[in-house]
Amino acid sequence: MRVIYGINPVREALKVAGAGRGIENIFVWERREDKVILDIANDARRKGIKVKIASRERLTELSGVEKHQGVVAVFKGEFAYCHMEDAIKAWKDSGGRALFLVLDSIQDPQNLGSLIRAAAASGVHAVIIPKDRACQVTPAVTKASAGATELVMIARVTNLTNTLSGLKEEGVWTVGIEAGSGKSLYSVDMLTDIAIVVGSEGSGIRRLVREECDITAQIPMKGSLNSLNAAQAGVVALFEVRRQRGFS
Amino acid sequence: MRVIYGINPVREALKVAGAGRGIENIFVWERREDKVILDIANDARRKGIKVKIASRERLTELSGVEKHQGVVAVFKGEFAYCHMEDAIKAWKDSGGRALFLVLDSIQDPQNLGSLIRAAAASGVHAVIIPKDRACQVTPAVTKASAGATELVMIARVTNLTNTLSGLKEEGVWTVGIEAGSGKSLYSVDMLTDIAIVVGSEGSGIRRLVREECDITAQIPMKGSLNSLNAAQAGVVALFEVRRQRGFS
Repeated sequence: MRVIYGINPVREALKVAGAGRGIENIFVWERREDKVILDIANDARRKGIKVKIASRERLTELSGVEKHQGVVAVFKGEFAYCHMEDAIKAWKDSGGRALFLVLDSIQDPQNLGSLIRAAAASGVHAVIIPKDRACQVTPAVTKASAGATELVMIARVTNLTNTLSGLKEEGVWTVGIEAGSGKSLYSVDMLTDIAIVVGSEGSGIRRLVREECDITAQIPMKGSLNSLNAAQAGVVALFEVRRQRGFS
Repeated sequence: MRVIYGINPVREALKVAGAGRGIENIFVWERREDKVILDIANDARRKGIKVKIASRERLTELSGVEKHQGVVAVFKGEFAYCHMEDAIKAWKDSGGRALFLVLDSIQDPQNLGSLIRAAAASGVHAVIIPKDRACQVTPAVTKASAGATELVMIARVTNLTNTLSGLKEEGVWTVGIEAGSGKSLYSVDMLTDIAIVVGSEGSGIRRLVREECDITAQIPMKGSLNSLNAAQAGVVALFEVRRQRGFS
């Protein structure tokens, strides 16, 4: 059983419910009577999803957390990762320039959620994560992403190096974001088909993955502290792509 | 008694120890023998700071958390916020164009730490936070900032509206970052003296504070989710200032 919780995640999930990511039930706290929760309940009912009233304790039990904001959605199946072929098809069908976000071994659910949110807001075709030794899409990640996990395609792959190699065969330029790599992010031409590669919080991009990158680029800094975390570096890189390409 | 914990925060604090932010003691876990902790201990001793060996439980008691990474620093006084006059003096002494980050009522320690880290990495002259109804600089914030709270000036003010008004009298251009405000961040000229204003996670910039902004600007988005969180919006805005100004 897969659950998501929190107002934004459930609201975003409802927008795409019926599109293959079926919600089975919505549980609403018996004491919440504000408009935002009533709207969610009405929206769910309109879509033929059963809305159940529950105690705070029941919601905590379902979601596994206390900060569920009084609303929990229960899904029919597990989280629906996509295949790389679907991700590439989504790009080709769009008729636009490719934008992928490749995450090499992010460990922290907050950072993964934040990166997926930034990916959704910057219009990536898909986020790509490895299956092993990395944070997967959990309810905490969905919450941290403000529901973006329900909106953006997320491909899960067994071998990131092979995946990058495959993207390059499709003509995608692979750009690793790495502190101290010399070349400035702002001097990289983002108008081509591109995959932005972000490394893990502690140790950055793994060597074999880095070797599959066409280039590595750093975010230049100027200040007393010479570093951003993985989630911050990711959002800056994604929005630099968008700035160069325009937003229309 | 003020404490900070974690490898990066303590290491950064040691860099400036002696410069008025005096560390009284460093506590190191008795079982940690790796180089990074030994380096911290040696650095502390060189600076005349007493290093004490402690049990894991003692470190948890001192720091208030379990994720202290085996190192805790205890300071002589409370956190040293600066006054607005000091912040303005720092700018004028620098001879450069002003860059301030004004945070209107950030609630979450993780977000506040993240914003302070981005501020330090983008070279702001000071971060400005309100004294009431907002997250203050706690050990958790220092940890989330990777120690940046020890490196960047943080002014705490009683009335943010008055502070913005005072900045404007000094010729500083006040730019509120707000979703849906029409004007694109990327069309704002950041080459002038500037204060970036970021609102709280839930409700954005408060009305009276917004009315003191010379302009509001949005980060344009393109994707399935039309929002970033406060910490993400802040880092994108700060690095757009840096990009326009250059990093040298």
